[in-house]
Amino acid sequence: MADMPKTVDIREEGPREGFQIEKEFIPTNRKVEFINALATTGLHHIQTVSFVDPRRVPNSADAEQVVEGIKMVPGVKFTGLWLNDKGFERAVATKKLTIEGGITLSASDAFLKRNQNKTVAELMATLPATIAKYKEYKVEMGKALISAAFGCNYQGEVPVERVVEIAGDLVRIATENGVTLKQLTLADTMGWATPGSIKRVVGAVREKFPDLDIVLHLHDTRGMGIANAYAGLEMGVTKYDAAVAGLGGCPFAGHKGAAGNVCTEDLVFMCQEMGIETGLDLDKLIDCANLAEDVVGHPLPGSVMKGGNTAKLRAAAKQAASA
Amino acid sequence: MADMPKTVDIREEGPREGFQIEKEFIPTNRKVEFINALATTGLHHIQTVSFVDPRRVPNSADAEQVVEGIKMVPGVKFTGLWLNDKGFERAVATKKLTIEGGITLSASDAFLKRNQNKTVAELMATLPATIAKYKEYKVEMGKALISAAFGCNYQGEVPVERVVEIAGDLVRIATENGVTLKQLTLADTMGWATPGSIKRVVGAVREKFPDLDIVLHLHDTRGMGIANAYAGLEMGVTKYDAAVAGLGGCPFAGHKGAAGNVCTEDLVFMCQEMGIETGLDLDKLIDCANLAEDVVGHPLPGSVMKGGNTAKLRAAAKQAASA
Repeated sequence: MADMPKTVDIREEGPREGFQIEKEFIPTNRKVEFINALATTGLHHIQTVSFVDPRRVPNSADAEQVVEGIKMVPGVKFTGLWLNDKGFERAVATKKLTIEGGITLSASDAFLKRNQNKTVAELMATLPATIAKYKEYKVEMGKALISAAFGCNYQGEVPVERVVEIAGDLVRIATENGVTLKQLTLADTMGWATPGSIKRVVGAVREKFPDLDIVLHLHDTRGMGIANAYAGLEMGVTKYDAAVAGLGGCPFAGHKGAAGNVCTEDLVFMCQEMGIETGLDLDKLIDCANLAEDVVGHPLPGSVMKGGNTAKLRAAAKQAASA
Repeated sequence: MADMPKTVDIREEGPREGFQIEKEFIPTNRKVEFINALATTGLHHIQTVSFVDPRRVPNSADAEQVVEGIKMVPGVKFTGLWLNDKGFERAVATKKLTIEGGITLSASDAFLKRNQNKTVAELMATLPATIAKYKEYKVEMGKALISAAFGCNYQGEVPVERVVEIAGDLVRIATENGVTLKQLTLADTMGWATPGSIKRVVGAVREKFPDLDIVLHLHDTRGMGIANAYAGLEMGVTKYDAAVAGLGGCPFAGHKGAAGNVCTEDLVFMCQEMGIETGLDLDKLIDCANLAEDVVGHPLPGSVMKGGNTAKLRAAAKQAASA
């Protein structure tokens, strides 16, 4: 375990990922309540809303109002998601969100076709204009993401070489357009990764691009989320996207098959128990997970929110023994 | 990953662990149907019933009738659980079950006190008589188990040294009574383990007792089950207890806090994707998981049963590409 990092950095995706899949409209004030609670846990990056077509994602209709309600906290970065210029401009117009000008490609043509009706080559061709737009607005750049980096429901296997190739495309396009890529998110968009493929893909990308800081964006579709994060830790990966209570999908209550992100507080629990610092308050995160269940109105897949923080039990046992 | 085993051996606990916690009585024929379905998946060890007091565990009242209904399959071992002589004699009297005379201790006095109202020393004192009874009935011996080997809700921390000490007690008592201990199950009874503690405890026990074959019995109370199994694989552990659909507890539908075993088909999925042979048919296990949900009448925590077998998606994509 020589490679285990001493600290990890978790970016919260819960509000954005979690609410967008709900069919029932969640009242704005409840979304705001949840985001403001998250901001007290030690998290310093919370993805809050999507600026997308409300006809496709009804729960994104109040994105501006949600941002309006956020209580800013020093040291906490609130961000949003967009898929086109219009969404980007809506995000900028809030004047409250931190705008990160990331660029994205997919390791699977088949997924991209279904998701954005574009081939990888077509999406690639739009990136210089995207970067130009970000430059025009003087937003922070240097981050990129590869979706479907571990497999794809529509294409099947995604070869490691293809992921490395796409990483190379992102580095090249960034460089050609005057941007230095610093961070690359490998997204297991459809929950295909296992600890073995996490190690292979992270290893191959890092070998070719040792200066890129790797982020893992994991989904728990097939129950591998925490094991995959552990494999990431073994590879020395220090940055993870996660969602409180495993928001972003619920395999229960009529959401069969939908799949949440790896659960923030479960990941924090694993780190805590292995002596890895997250800077997060596990008990407050558990409170947020319970709040999330209350807000969405159905059970969520997180485990530690049900099993409890062993640190508390340990302390109680110690106190009982010394009494 | 030099230590990764080529094959692993999974013992199914679903019927026994899964049904005993249900409040509603599950009809005998449905229990039998589930067990007989499990026996077609390639599993060769299925723990089927508990011979315990039906006033405490109402769903164990029909243990004999369930065993009566099992269709024997060559190469499949059906076993039962008991906690005292009476239960043992009931198991023997079925004349169908394989009787394994295992001995058990706990690494936590506090847990044992709550669970069996005995101290570890008191339970230890009963083991020679237990072994004598097993000898009298000429049953298979050589297996032992340590409960609460990774932590305890009542005692808190369980020191690694205590687990090694208890392992030593089991070896000594077995030897003194003419039995050679071959297999030791380390049970994470209350879901305290993380990959770090799995490695520490397995490593320490193996260093002291290199000839003992180690089995991991994992609970998914805090969402660490699959990650812990992965840590076990990295330590070269080849034997796991598991339960289809994560039976043995359901954190949903009014069962908040109850915790299932690590999920059989999720574990098989991880092995399959990492090239580790289990001898099990993943699609049939998924069918069994769906059957289990139908039998208990509420959602169960398994993930691959909802996310699907990627091998199928891979094959479909390949076929589409070549069409």
